[in-house]
Amino acid sequence: MRLHNFNPGPAALPLGVLERARDELVEYQGSGMSIIEHSHRGKEYGEVHQSALGLVRELLAVPDTHEVVFMQGGAHLQFSLVPLNFLPAGKSADYVVSGGWAERAAEEASFVGTAREAARSIGVQNPTSLSLDPDAAYVHITSNNTLEGTQWQSFPDTGSVPLVADMSSDLFSRRIDVGAFALIYACAQKNLGPAGVTLVIIDKGFLSRARADVPPSLRYDSYVRAQSLYNTPPTFAIYMSRYVLEWIKAQGGLAAVEATNQQKAQQVYRVLDEHPSFYRSPVERASRSVMNVVFRLPSEALEERFLAEAKQQSLVGLKGHRLVGGMRASLYNAVSLESTRRLCDFMRTFAAESRA
Amino acid sequence: MRLHNFNPGPAALPLGVLERARDELVEYQGSGMSIIEHSHRGKEYGEVHQSALGLVRELLAVPDTHEVVFMQGGAHLQFSLVPLNFLPAGKSADYVVSGGWAERAAEEASFVGTAREAARSIGVQNPTSLSLDPDAAYVHITSNNTLEGTQWQSFPDTGSVPLVADMSSDLFSRRIDVGAFALIYACAQKNLGPAGVTLVIIDKGFLSRARADVPPSLRYDSYVRAQSLYNTPPTFAIYMSRYVLEWIKAQGGLAAVEATNQQKAQQVYRVLDEHPSFYRSPVERASRSVMNVVFRLPSEALEERFLAEAKQQSLVGLKGHRLVGGMRASLYNAVSLESTRRLCDFMRTFAAESRA
Repeated sequence: MRLHNFNPGPAALPLGVLERARDELVEYQGSGMSIIEHSHRGKEYGEVHQSALGLVRELLAVPDTHEVVFMQGGAHLQFSLVPLNFLPAGKSADYVVSGGWAERAAEEASFVGTAREAARSIGVQNPTSLSLDPDAAYVHITSNNTLEGTQWQSFPDTGSVPLVADMSSDLFSRRIDVGAFALIYACAQKNLGPAGVTLVIIDKGFLSRARADVPPSLRYDSYVRAQSLYNTPPTFAIYMSRYVLEWIKAQGGLAAVEATNQQKAQQVYRVLDEHPSFYRSPVERASRSVMNVVFRLPSEALEERFLAEAKQQSLVGLKGHRLVGGMRASLYNAVSLESTRRLCDFMRTFAAESRA
Repeated sequence: MRLHNFNPGPAALPLGVLERARDELVEYQGSGMSIIEHSHRGKEYGEVHQSALGLVRELLAVPDTHEVVFMQGGAHLQFSLVPLNFLPAGKSADYVVSGGWAERAAEEASFVGTAREAARSIGVQNPTSLSLDPDAAYVHITSNNTLEGTQWQSFPDTGSVPLVADMSSDLFSRRIDVGAFALIYACAQKNLGPAGVTLVIIDKGFLSRARADVPPSLRYDSYVRAQSLYNTPPTFAIYMSRYVLEWIKAQGGLAAVEATNQQKAQQVYRVLDEHPSFYRSPVERASRSVMNVVFRLPSEALEERFLAEAKQQSLVGLKGHRLVGGMRASLYNAVSLESTRRLCDFMRTFAAESRA
């Protein structure tokens, strides 16, 4: 029986995508072999690859000013590649430290150059005191903070300073203005596909100013020039992402997905708001993440019982990150309204029974 | 119908492994979700991960002096990570340039420090004039050259200088003495699994001397300390590799696989030797690769006809690398004796008919 999967990533994938991959895993579309046995330079995989890149452009309305590339290494590798490519000697970059992953990004950059803390805003999406350096090489933000359950609802205006965003956990969950960003990166395993591929969208002008004294395998332009075939790409992860992108398109694109995601998140936050003395949200209302609803119960003993009883109801993946504790319901694209409704029902019942 | 797949990588996988993955792709072993939807820190994936690491140790007889880690980025990323971690300022590393990929490795290292050419030996496995620098930070070799079809049959003694080997295309194809190497790396898509995961085996003493001024996401010790869970690993690629490793074990381990691989290669080389005026091998006999048999025909027109007629016999993936041209039969572990026999039959017939 299929569980209701609220995992924070790797996360739930659309059932239809999994079934399709299953049906053709041994032999891809009559080609005599699996898609993972095909050459990355052959016709069959080539079509998958180009189709995936094309769907990214289409769904996100990526302007012609920007390149789209698939890479490997997760968001973590991007934490170091961004400064290696775009933080020249003697320059400083601004980091908005809005959560644990933002902190890691800033830490990695500090090995390359100066990573200046432009704001520390854990638990808050729109830091009121964003002190930007007009000479910064770039400003780095994290669009959604999975550990803390906060999310930027609108993005800061950084003027002429290039804006770089880690969108690992909310890219493809809502419409965004890609043109406003110099660089966007996202690991796949939230809303795009299985772990193992990283999507990067990069402004051509920004790219042209990248450092050239870095080894080619660490340079964005290597992957851009080779159309993401600089070396063997993670073909299965891109193949699966293609089907997820098609699924997003079939849902009605990002506008439709965004509406459903809003609906799901509102349902869970409503339960929290209905039970303020039982479910406690550490996040200020204006910063609430649509992707990751973080909450605490009155005691750790109750939290453990919550997880155990949720599991009995086939609701899994609700434990908060080990660094912050508590509960977390991740509501990525492939988590259905039905799964969300069941979670809300359970939460209401659990609160009522625990208080009785 | 399943083709006889001689692809150079991504390459053929054992049919039983593909079928098993298909059968449990939607729901992994009654767990209520796909293995690619499981958390990388959960029990189900955790068992896969540890089992894969354990099988690597077992099959390769990795000594306790060495660590085993799964990373991402392919061999290409290793081309830069090796010098970034082990080539300190002011030092030089020795590179044996035995083929196109070795050349790339040396080129990447030259962005970090001095990459000295210890030998240029394209087409020859044991360079007679290996001029090693006793003060080198390490010596880098490529155990098997997929483009050129050459392979080290035994490895050079580098004395106290650490030996680093790119074994992307022959690791798990034969027995090796892991303890003789300071670092071994290999992308998966030849003998281990699908593209998207890179295996690294590293001597603990060597690792302890790595540079510490490099961003953590580019440091081997980050991945070693976290048991390959420093960040989200490419879970599907590791999951598939686990089944391939089990398959190797079921074949009788590396000794058995090595014997079969020798048999396959001998069969194809025998056809070349039987038709010296038709099939031309650019490789000296002592350097012949067991993995990639490279050969030319009398003309490019004949080569094109060879590929077309081979395809009609369900024999595919025989085109040489675009950088070197000609033909190439890659005979990785999952290429069966039966596929090899069919290739040999076709080659004999084609030679006879073309000369008639």
